[in-house]
Amino acid sequence: MVRSTGLENASGQKLSARDSLLQAAGELMNERDTLDISLGEISARAQANSALVKYYFGNKHGLLLALIERDVVKSLVQLEHLVESDISPVEKMRIHIAGLINTYFRSRYLNKLLFMLLRESTPEQGQEISDRLVKPAADAQRRILEEGLAKGQFRPVDPMLFYFTVIGACDQLFTAGFALKFVFGKDELDEDVKRDLIAHTTSVLLAGIAAP
Amino acid sequence: MVRSTGLENASGQKLSARDSLLQAAGELMNERDTLDISLGEISARAQANSALVKYYFGNKHGLLLALIERDVVKSLVQLEHLVESDISPVEKMRIHIAGLINTYFRSRYLNKLLFMLLRESTPEQGQEISDRLVKPAADAQRRILEEGLAKGQFRPVDPMLFYFTVIGACDQLFTAGFALKFVFGKDELDEDVKRDLIAHTTSVLLAGIAAP
Repeated sequence: MVRSTGLENASGQKLSARDSLLQAAGELMNERDTLDISLGEISARAQANSALVKYYFGNKHGLLLALIERDVVKSLVQLEHLVESDISPVEKMRIHIAGLINTYFRSRYLNKLLFMLLRESTPEQGQEISDRLVKPAADAQRRILEEGLAKGQFRPVDPMLFYFTVIGACDQLFTAGFALKFVFGKDELDEDVKRDLIAHTTSVLLAGIAAP
Repeated sequence: MVRSTGLENASGQKLSARDSLLQAAGELMNERDTLDISLGEISARAQANSALVKYYFGNKHGLLLALIERDVVKSLVQLEHLVESDISPVEKMRIHIAGLINTYFRSRYLNKLLFMLLRESTPEQGQEISDRLVKPAADAQRRILEEGLAKGQFRPVDPMLFYFTVIGACDQLFTAGFALKFVFGKDELDEDVKRDLIAHTTSVLLAGIAAP
């Protein structure tokens, strides 16, 4: 059951009703900087009957989980290719950090939504979500660190603690977007800020773990 | 109207009913790793009549705002002394980062609660909360960076972007505590993890901004 609707993806292709619902939920959370959106708002934006939410996703939790999957799984595949590639560990880490910031820029709700879904989950569901969507990124980072240490490019760094350093440093501007306006007087998190954030974060973190 | 209750602070002193309500709210949010606590639970833990919430704070929003004030204002006074002190900018930044992690360790709900209160606020209230509780920390960091640059200890770094780097790197382990268990198999965020996090974060960030 694939129904055509009015929504299109970034490449201008018509989306199926299922993808339109995901696209609409993501757009609404990005625009309003809140996770607090209703099924009625999502289906109105998607130009899809709200009964389709139940049909495709079971309920709102299922829809939001499918949205996170859509956002994360593609990045994880690219990350796996990156780790396996021939370039230097320093370049791998730089590309990984830039990729994280690009992902958070496109889907600003990502980490907040992940935390909300984990709070609403049983421990078994939480473990399953983490194994599928979070652990692969932590493993990839660890492998880049190990390769960089072996090749004399990085100093020894605890991979667990560095995981939190990287995610926090890349995500904070998006999670704490209010501070951009209230503290620094900037109205918008635009492409210029994103580009500066990538240059800043890669240079600080790579200098921070460089071999002496 | 100061009523004595059963709660004590970390130094073993009996708390007033007002301070007991704040202490109880903070303890409950720390223990349960959630902001979702009821006024009934807070007043039961504080051994105080729930009508006192209205008397002292107006409502739950007022109580939670007073809790953030309690947690943050003392740290901001210490930070101001630190910036004005005679020690080197590198040491100031190290002490500042360690202080942030200690604050988040004691009050793990801090950033999540701040974001929630800002979401519930009008733009005017949000600006007022940011001016009082967030902007002074950002200003202090900027002054340490400027002093370090002037003394040849730091390279030029955008103070706004570095603010998000520092807050994110220090807070992520607390905000994303689930990952500690689900991704890294660690059951508890204890004093050992905190000590390692301080050593790791200060070394990565200070190397990251060191003058060449």
